[in-house]
Order: sequence, then C-alpha cells, then structure tokens
Amino acid sequence: MSDKVDKFKKEREELNKLVLKRNNLNIKRFFGIDSAVYRDGALDSKTKEMIGLAASLVLRCDDCIAYHVIQLKNTELDDNQFDEIMSIGLVVGGSITIPHVRRAVKLWNDLKNSN
Amino acid sequence: MSDKVDKFKKEREELNKLVLKRNNLNIKRFFGIDSAVYRDGALDSKTKEMIGLAASLVLRCDDCIAYHVIQLKNTELDDNQFDEIMSIGLVVGGSITIPHVRRAVKLWNDLKNSN
Amino acid sequence: MSDKVDKFKKEREELNKLVLKRNNLNIKRFFGIDSAVYRDGALDSKTKEMIGLAASLVLRCDDCIAYHVIQLKNTELDDNQFDEIMSIGLVVGGSITIPHVRRAVKLWNDLKNSN
Amino acid sequence: MSDKVDKFKKEREELNKLVLKRNNLNIKRFFGIDSAVYRDGALDSKTKEMIGLAASLVLRCDDCIAYHVIQLKNTELDDNQFDEIMSIGLVVGGSITIPHVRRAVKLWNDLKNSN
Amino acid sequence: MSDKVDKFKKEREELNKLVLKRNNLNIKRFFGIDSAVYRDGALDSKTKEMIGLAASLVLRCDDCIAYHVIQLKNTELDDNQFDEIMSIGLVVGGSITIPHVRRAVKLWNDLKNSN
Amino acid sequence: MSDKVDKFKKEREELNKLVLKRNNLNIKRFFGIDSAVYRDGALDSKTKEMIGLAASLVLRCDDCIAYHVIQLKNTELDDNQFDEIMSIGLVVGGSITIPHVRRAVKLWNDLKNSN
Repeated sequence: MSDKVDKFKKEREELNKLVLKRNNLNIKRFFGIDSAVYRDGALDSKTKEMIGLAASLVLRCDDCIAYHVIQLKNTELDDNQFDEIMSIGLVVGGSITIPHVRRAVKLWNDLKNSN
Repeated sequence: MSDKVDKFKKEREELNKLVLKRNNLNIKRFFGIDSAVYRDGALDSKTKEMIGLAASLVLRCDDCIAYHVIQLKNTELDDNQFDEIMSIGLVVGGSITIPHVRRAVKLWNDLKNSN
Repeated sequence: MSDKVDKFKKEREELNKLVLKRNNLNIKRFFGIDSAVYRDGALDSKTKEMIGLAASLVLRCDDCIAYHVIQLKNTELDDNQFDEIMSIGLVVGGSITIPHVRRAVKLWNDLKNSN
Repeated sequence: MSDKVDKFKKEREELNKLVLKRNNLNIKRFFGIDSAVYRDGALDSKTKEMIGLAASLVLRCDDCIAYHVIQLKNTELDDNQFDEIMSIGLVVGGSITIPHVRRAVKLWNDLKNSN
Repeated sequence: MSDKVDKFKKEREELNKLVLKRNNLNIKRFFGIDSAVYRDGALDSKTKEMIGLAASLVLRCDDCIAYHVIQLKNTELDDNQFDEIMSIGLVVGGSITIPHVRRAVKLWNDLKNSN
Repeated sequence: MSDKVDKFKKEREELNKLVLKRNNLNIKRFFGIDSAVYRDGALDSKTKEMIGLAASLVLRCDDCIAYHVIQLKNTELDDNQFDEIMSIGLVVGGSITIPHVRRAVKLWNDLKNSN
C-alpha cells in the first residue's frame, strides 16, 4: 500500500511541477493560497485539514480526498474522528458520495496498516 | 463482460464491508435508508431504480450508474425504455453527461450480450 | 396559492418567449428536445416527469422542481408516491437538497389545497 | 437583523413540520441522521458545525450556510476562525462561492451586532 | 432597469467591502486573483469575460452571470455572439441551466434597452 | 503520447457509435446540437472551443476537457493563451479543479511534443 501512496504522491508532485513551470503568475498565486489556507492560524492545521477533507468529499474529488486523508494520517486523528468526518460528508452530500467514502476508508485503513 | 460486472460487484461488496465494519452508527443508518428507498412501496422498485439511474446520471457518478443499470437489467426494462431514461438525463444534465451515457450504454449492451 | 402558481407559469412563459424570439437555432432546437423527452413513448409521460423531478431535485434547481411538481399534479400521482420521489432525491443528493424538498412539499400541498 | 434571523428560523421550522408530518419513514429517518451527525462525539459539536459550514459553502446552499452560521454564533467561534473557514471554502470551491461568502459574512456581522 | 442594475452593483460593492474589511489575507489575495484573470493578456479581456460568463452559466450562479453580462455589455459583443455563448452553456450544462439562460437574456435585453 | 490520444479518440468514436446506433431520436438530435454549437458563427470556432474547455474544466469532466484540448491543439492557440484559460477555470471552479488542470496541462504538453 505504501507503494500506492508513494505513487500517488510522486505523480501529484510531478504534475504540479509541470503546472508551476508554466509562465502564468495567477496559477502560481492560486497554488500559493491553496497551501496557505491549511496552515496553523486562528484554527489549527488539523481542523483545517478535516474541513478540507469534508469539502473534498461532498464535491466528490478523489485526488483531493486522498491528499487530505494522507495529511490527516500525520496528525493524531483517530478512527472514530475520521468516521465522523465521513458521516457528515455522507449526510450532506448524499449517497452519491458513497463510492468516495469507500475509497477514503480503504486508503485510511491501508495507511494505518502500512505503519 | 460478466467478468467485469462480477469484479465490479465483488469490489463494491468488499468495500461496503470495510465501511460497515467501522464503529459509526450514522453511516450504518445511512446505508440502511439508501437500501430502503428503492424497495417496492407506493412506487414499484423498477420505477425507483429508473429514478435512481437518472439521478446518478445527472450527478455523473459512474459507480452509481453501473449499480442501477445492473439492478434494472434484472427487471423487464426494454431497450427503448433504457434509452429514454438516458435521453432525459442527457437533456437535464447536458453534454457533460455524455461520457457517462456512453459507458452506461456499453454496460447495458454488454449485460444483454452476456445472457 | 393558485395565484403564486399562475405567476410562476406566466413569468416562465414570458421569459421563454424572450429566449425563443432570439435568432439562435441551436437554442430553439434544444428547447424542442427538452419538451420531447417527457412525452409518452416507451415510458409514459408520468414516469418521465417523476424522473425529471428527481433529477431536478438532486441538481437543486427550484424552478425545474416547481415545473415538474406542477406537471405531476395533473397526473394521478398520489401523496405517498410523491413522498417516495422526494425520499430518493434526498438520499441520493443529501441534506443539501433539504431546502428544496421543503419548498417542493409546500408547493405540492398548496396545489392540492387550491383544488 | 434579529428579525431576519427569527423569520429564517420560523419559516425553516414550519416547513420542516410540513415535511415531517408526511407519511414517509425514510424521510423522517434521514432528518434524524442529519441532526445526529453534528452532535458531540469523537469530534465536538463546534468542529462538526465548522465542517458543515464549509461543506455547505462549497456546495453553495444559502439556507444550509445560514443554518450553520447561526449554530456557530452560539459557540465561542471568533471572527478570525470564521474567516478562515470562509477562506478554505473559497479556495476549494472557487469564485463561484463568492456571492455566498458575501452573504455569510453579512449574516455573521449582523448576528454579532444584534447581541 | 438601469435601476435594477445599479442596485445589483451597489449591493455587490457594499458586500465586497464587508468581506475585504475583514482581517484575512488569503481572502484578499483570492479577490486579487479573481480580478487579475480577466484582464487583457495573451487573451483579450472580452474573450475572458465570455469564458467567465459560460463558466458561470454551467455552474448556475446568477450573481456571477449578471456580473459578466454587465461587463460584456461594455464591450462590442453583439446579440448573436451573446446568444452563441448562451447556446454553448445550455448544451454543456443541460436544461437545468434554462432558468439562468432566461434571466441572462432578460438582463441582456434590459441593458440594451436602457441605453 | 500520440498513442494515448489515438486510443482516446478511437474509444470515444466507438462508444459514440454504440450510442448513435440506438433507436432514440432525441439522443441523436442532442448529439447534433452538441456538434453545431462549436461551429464558426457569430463567434469563431476557436473562441467557442476555448469556452467549451473552460466550461468542461469547472464542471470537472476529464473526457470533455481532453476533447476540447485536442480540438484547440489544431488551432493557433499558444501556450500563454492556454494557460490563461486554465487560470480562469481554476479561479472560477476552485482548487477542486486542480487535478483536472494537472491532466489538461500534461495532455497539452504531450500533444505539443508529439508534433
């Protein structure tokens, strides 16, 4: 599994490089803000990643979900807290989010088992 | 093809098990309602599956579409009825649904040919 | 209430006229298909309107919901059937559809009481 | 302003009553889960309301946003924390959320001034 | 009509001020990029506003549509060009965009007549 | 790469054939309009493809994005213009579009290198 996560991270990084090598200031500035909003501030980074995960879930973006799940694995988030984020996303976004909930739970489990 | 459908069903089942093994009552309750709303009631199950298929199509969820197509294959839905559901989803949801219409039609054809 | 529905219908009609008076063939052709897909065919018109209502609900379009509710009021759809369409839309689309479910139920009630 | 919030709450309550008076168990069960997922659990209710607010913002549901803003006004959420939730929703959901950010900020300000 | 547009512009400006008065750098930076991407560059501003209008239409954001329609009224965009943008949005986004097409056409007409 | 594009084109064509072989007039008519709206008219085809690309990006449809990127490769669109379309889509649609921006940029690069 850690192979799969490594592959995900590597591809993401390579493609981000492709995007950021391009000659467009607004795209670079957007990427800058996209990193900034999850940093510790009035809310701590863990809370912000939880918010980012739920937002990604209701918008049904698998890559975004995977990114935030990996970020949250590095915090002290426990299983029940993870499930409660899933449950809010599921109720807000409906059954249409179920395929993404399934993959998020699988990734979370796999990350845990790979430690 | 029946191989592909079997694989889809098996993966779906396994991932559902992963989700339902978790210690979260609300997720389990949601899954319960998600099954209940398609059962025979004031509307018959076939009509409900058609509604579920169209809703999945306009929300562009391939896994959800595949699930309802498979369910409908087990009813007496005929080709023209299937196409009319597709046509409503296409008009309501726009050309952005076309990739999903293509895959739904292919699955429908394949299920028919595998009988 | 019938005043409110009359106003909705009249505004809709007037704005549709504005759109169709314009010199664009593709828009006119789209409006033509949009009417055609709900007509009796391999599936009857009532079933198609139910599908249209659920699709409008999960996409959260109040004007579209109101249109299909009014169409369905003219069929023999009963209260329990109406509620089951709502329940599917609610489960597929999630709590984010609740404000639209509320308004749809209110319109359905009002239409019934205005008879 | 507290008038406006009172009106919002009252209408919401009345329409919810209309929905829950109907004879459909699945809708009632859905409403039950929708309340349950925001209650104190492994995550506290305040964190869950923040998650609910961000999810509502990226899905652009004004009624849902207003509901969670009002809920959060009753916690010790401060201005900077509120703004950081807005900033995440804005970045995840894009400029298309700006009209909703504007209305959320206005409501937040008005609630504060009405105390 | 120019009254209605003036009211729209004024409210928009006032609410933007409320948002930008807040103490959050990322929100301010986002608003900065949101202005920047429509400025003359490799593509001229008129083309970018057309792109912004179509994107707003398929995402069904009335405030965003109104903003870009008003911007485009100040360019040499003619009626047929306007209609062709509408037709693309309508086909891509489906019948669910029709209520927004109606309001966009009405606004475009009204702006023209108010000159 | 040209292999990947060829495969994409071939699969698309084959699946379109499957859909259009079916006995449903409304689907065929929809496909007809879907081609028609991008043809030279009051706006030239290149501008319309740019609009189609941005609309596909904010709606996050990879197949649709790939189609319009390939179409635009056959026009004189340059790198900076391509990036500006991406930047508008990114700002309108938010960080949730980033995975699609990444894949669009990669495809654009690959198409250029395969010439």
